Amino acid sequence: MADQIIFTAEDLTRMLIDLPTCNQTIGDQARARQNSLTKPQGSLGHLEELAIWLASWQGRDAPSVADAYCLVFAGNHGIAAKGVSAYPAEVTAQMVMNFEQGGAAINQLCRVSGAVLKVVALELDRPTDDLSQGPAMTAEDCARALQVGRDAVPETADILLLGEMGIGNSTSAAALSAACFGGAVKDWTGPGTGLDQSGLDYKINLIEQAMSCHDNMLTSPFEILRRLGGRELAAIAGAVICARERGIPVILDGYICTAAAAVLTTGATAALDHCQVAHLSREPGHRVLSEILGKRPILDLDMRLGEASGAAVALMVLQAAVAVHNGMATFAEAGVSEHD
Amino acid sequence: MADQIIFTAEDLTRMLIDLPTCNQTIGDQARARQNSLTKPQGSLGHLEELAIWLASWQGRDAPSVADAYCLVFAGNHGIAAKGVSAYPAEVTAQMVMNFEQGGAAINQLCRVSGAVLKVVALELDRPTDDLSQGPAMTAEDCARALQVGRDAVPETADILLLGEMGIGNSTSAAALSAACFGGAVKDWTGPGTGLDQSGLDYKINLIEQAMSCHDNMLTSPFEILRRLGGRELAAIAGAVICARERGIPVILDGYICTAAAAVLTTGATAALDHCQVAHLSREPGHRVLSEILGKRPILDLDMRLGEASGAAVALMVLQAAVAVHNGMATFAEAGVSEHD
Repeated sequence: MADQIIFTAEDLTRMLIDLPTCNQTIGDQARARQNSLTKPQGSLGHLEELAIWLASWQGRDAPSVADAYCLVFAGNHGIAAKGVSAYPAEVTAQMVMNFEQGGAAINQLCRVSGAVLKVVALELDRPTDDLSQGPAMTAEDCARALQVGRDAVPETADILLLGEMGIGNSTSAAALSAACFGGAVKDWTGPGTGLDQSGLDYKINLIEQAMSCHDNMLTSPFEILRRLGGRELAAIAGAVICARERGIPVILDGYICTAAAAVLTTGATAALDHCQVAHLSREPGHRVLSEILGKRPILDLDMRLGEASGAAVALMVLQAAVAVHNGMATFAEAGVSEHD
Repeated sequence: MADQIIFTAEDLTRMLIDLPTCNQTIGDQARARQNSLTKPQGSLGHLEELAIWLASWQGRDAPSVADAYCLVFAGNHGIAAKGVSAYPAEVTAQMVMNFEQGGAAINQLCRVSGAVLKVVALELDRPTDDLSQGPAMTAEDCARALQVGRDAVPETADILLLGEMGIGNSTSAAALSAACFGGAVKDWTGPGTGLDQSGLDYKINLIEQAMSCHDNMLTSPFEILRRLGGRELAAIAGAVICARERGIPVILDGYICTAAAAVLTTGATAALDHCQVAHLSREPGHRVLSEILGKRPILDLDMRLGEASGAAVALMVLQAAVAVHNGMATFAEAGVSEHD
């Protein structure tokens, strides 16, 4: 079957302009309920905000995260051949096998958090092109990867966890972040799975080459993803949009996943309002990226694994937030005296 | 029945000197296992450290938190009559009723995390004396409260969560912290359940009076707890010691719970090595207190409720840590290439 362009750069831009918004009325009601529960107002901090956020995006007075779905996209990167990672490129496929056999961190974390895990490998035998020398993907490749992400989102779910696997993709994440938000490449670039300082300097240099190569051509979210991204990163962006259209809140994992999704905000500033950042990655660019996006990572555990591992742990915090929101007694119900 | 002195200040001091240590061999084996699992070394950050810590204190190659037990101690404070809290003193008993009826935050959080909840109310109809004017408790009272804490610890459990309820007890926590670690009272004092600035100034002034009143008499952990503590706080200290003796790791909730336990470090610097701090409380003294104790709070969610609420959420993070540690495949098992 011949390759078919599923949608164009203009289609993606238009999708982003037409994204649905949350239910503010339900959100206000959820906040009022939080303030009536038997605790000092605000004393559950971020748990309260998470419950209100879930209610407003699910459009339900009683939010739920019982039906949690975890998508891990995997892709291979041409730039990995340049030695930007501490691991060889074949580890991407080996880890996909490990996911399928149940031996990876995300398998254990989905089991303990109750999320259903689905791993989607995107043409691992066909790495993207080297983004330091030209576009990582053709328009057809990028559109197809976006569509794979859209197609992987379930029709219904209470919450979607997103993550990635791809040797070399922290290089892409740094390039995407620099393209979207400017700043020095070195501030967006970290050791990934474990580069030493000379490896890091080499990686920074390659990303700077990429930025020069694509300068003035990063004119839309699609072009940014196509030129500097990778298949699994475009798939994440596609899944984020599809979840928004279906009213499914999203937990973005760490730096790489957040960077992929962040590209969408260059088309619509509110594009990630239905998303939370799971955890603050050790990868140094993630703190600034989260701040620019106005996201407070739910956890800060010095994690830097990817594969949605932080998202699965953050799901457990959402479970706590939902349990409190739906289950607690109000002051009136419990006969507890309110604030003096 | 006449009051009976169960143990003295000297007994407590001796207990602290005789505390058992962790199993370092098991800890080393756990670290070696973490380094063999299919992830870059250290990439699960604090999750790895928590699993290793659990293994070393449980003395088991495969740590577990399946059998989790949550103790919430409640007490009333004479100083509450001086208006140091945004809530009236009767709320302590009302909240204990709420715990028993299942309507409080901790009920929902124990349910969702799988912990067994036990609430222990300590003579709520007999508040402690006003610590700004003299000792909060007699020696008998303090010893009895310590023993209540010891008696409440189960014979066996995988993990113990500790928390408290007591209108006025953030005043005690600030006084205990100042007594143990010095520094300005204002730096240890926060708004608790919701004081405004004038209420906070008034609270600081009362704690400063307390520090003057007890100056030079805070000569042992027991005397610090007796003079500036409260029954539920002494009970927490007693439970911490008992858990150590039984090889049960402990999760301390927030500021007040940490401050009560911290008194033990004035008798033995390693007294809390079997404890983790669940979360960084919004109460401003907690950050410094955690740093002094060398504890990294597992969570930072702007919580400030008490009643072990943060400890129950932190338990879920430990569940994730244990799942990864026990369940992941090694590089050899999975056939994944190691670091270049």
